[in-house]
Amino acid sequence: MKIIIAGAGAMGSRFGLMLHRADNEVILVDGWQEHIDAINKNGLKANFNGEEVVERIPIYNQNEVSTIDFSADLVILFTKAMQLDNMLQSISSLLHEETKVLCLLNGIGHEDIIKNYVPYNNILLGNTMWTSDMEGPGKVKLFGDGSIDLQNLGAGQENVANEVVEVLNQAGLNANYSSNILSSIYKKACVNGAVNGLCTLLGCNIADFGKTTYADAIVEQIVDEFIAIADAQEISLNKDEVLAQIKSSFNPETIGLHYPSMHQDLIVNNRLTEIDYINGVIVRKGKQYQISTPYCTFLTELIHTKEEILGAK
Amino acid sequence: MKIIIAGAGAMGSRFGLMLHRADNEVILVDGWQEHIDAINKNGLKANFNGEEVVERIPIYNQNEVSTIDFSADLVILFTKAMQLDNMLQSISSLLHEETKVLCLLNGIGHEDIIKNYVPYNNILLGNTMWTSDMEGPGKVKLFGDGSIDLQNLGAGQENVANEVVEVLNQAGLNANYSSNILSSIYKKACVNGAVNGLCTLLGCNIADFGKTTYADAIVEQIVDEFIAIADAQEISLNKDEVLAQIKSSFNPETIGLHYPSMHQDLIVNNRLTEIDYINGVIVRKGKQYQISTPYCTFLTELIHTKEEILGAK
Repeated sequence: MKIIIAGAGAMGSRFGLMLHRADNEVILVDGWQEHIDAINKNGLKANFNGEEVVERIPIYNQNEVSTIDFSADLVILFTKAMQLDNMLQSISSLLHEETKVLCLLNGIGHEDIIKNYVPYNNILLGNTMWTSDMEGPGKVKLFGDGSIDLQNLGAGQENVANEVVEVLNQAGLNANYSSNILSSIYKKACVNGAVNGLCTLLGCNIADFGKTTYADAIVEQIVDEFIAIADAQEISLNKDEVLAQIKSSFNPETIGLHYPSMHQDLIVNNRLTEIDYINGVIVRKGKQYQISTPYCTFLTELIHTKEEILGAK
Repeated sequence: MKIIIAGAGAMGSRFGLMLHRADNEVILVDGWQEHIDAINKNGLKANFNGEEVVERIPIYNQNEVSTIDFSADLVILFTKAMQLDNMLQSISSLLHEETKVLCLLNGIGHEDIIKNYVPYNNILLGNTMWTSDMEGPGKVKLFGDGSIDLQNLGAGQENVANEVVEVLNQAGLNANYSSNILSSIYKKACVNGAVNGLCTLLGCNIADFGKTTYADAIVEQIVDEFIAIADAQEISLNKDEVLAQIKSSFNPETIGLHYPSMHQDLIVNNRLTEIDYINGVIVRKGKQYQISTPYCTFLTELIHTKEEILGAK
């Protein structure tokens, strides 16, 4: 199968490497020139479960990719959320009307952008539990097992989803067809949306936030807003399950001592956050469905304000 | 007149000193033992518009004041907001049914506490423009001019207010009867409520907050909540005036480069804030009047959460 990995960071490199080793025709597309140069020169290097491997995979800067001759059967999207639209523009000339697009980005609402470039029936959404570490330009570390759930967005397109499941499984990516992928994606976003922005704003780890007096009240208000927006789209989101998962994240013996990635992005690395693709989507959909979402709105505004004050880029 | 200054910090010391020099029988009540000891030993020292003066005024720790023989005609309240209830308990045995109580605390809603100790018709609310600096235990610096507006809370009690205006004016405190003191107090609290908590949370000065993209939207939402609560109590609060005053505070050439006192309290000095007496009052009154106040609620929760994370006391 002819596959574009659009966004060849840590996770994109894992998927590209495993799919290429399974004899698919893979190209990587990215915007980080140093990484592109390293892979062009030395191949994609990986510590793959302890074994040092080198995979020769073509890689292109997204600024130049439109000129190449490659007609994709499948695109796997792995960009940062704010780079998605730009990436889709860059690769649009390589898409045809049968090209399937699998979105594996963090956050929610990406289909609203993807559908501007791809027929609705060709869009697949997924949730992956694989991990990957970027060790430097052209070099990743791939350890442990993972899985991926995915589903077609268009009604009756299960065959499209199953075709992609099969390709991923041939590459050992442990894919499963999901009958409610939007629920899984909303659940993950809701857990992030109730914790990440707050820890970023308050400058604390998840456990420190979790043990404060108002944590439960704030979290419940945010979760209620996610559920109202999910309901309006007939996406089922179970409040008790979400709250239980958030509560378990407060535990210092699980992930409580971690600072969320948004804190790393903004406070540690002075980078713009993905808040618009977590709480910000709830705000946007709230306007669309005329549902009040004051906590997500205020939190999104506060994170953007903090970005501006810190001069994040 | 027999006057208790309840809370003899910088401002209480100014009022106590000026009223004592005008031949009133004044006692100071405070909780800071070092300050009390210094005044008992050396008198209240002040640099009073350039002149070094010493005023011998009795001062008591609020823990011991209940045992003294002093029947107050007037109490002027100058505590921190969170110390008010405790102070009123401490001095309650010195109050009689004619004692007038003038509240000059920052913030709003203090009458809800005062009325538990004092007949409604004896309560006066005021707003003062005087300033004062505490230079150390027993020593203040008093420069410049000021004024004070005040009004009776009980209907038809203008005579009570005017009596106090006269006593204050005899001491040079430049007092005026106000026909709408609650409007002035709400206006001041609204300006503070739209800026102080946010700068504290975001760790920035007023100008830095003011120039961010979402500042206007956030400020307007908070101001709308103050106005809704003021309306419910028939307190007039002019939106354009409030917004204009907030906007002028963003100017780096006026007070824009200052960090609000709440930022000093919490971030610099690790002290609990007065948020419950600014935005928190809007939350409390919102519940009472069944008016939704999500921005004030979330902001109050966030400031308390930050207090807990920093272990503020």
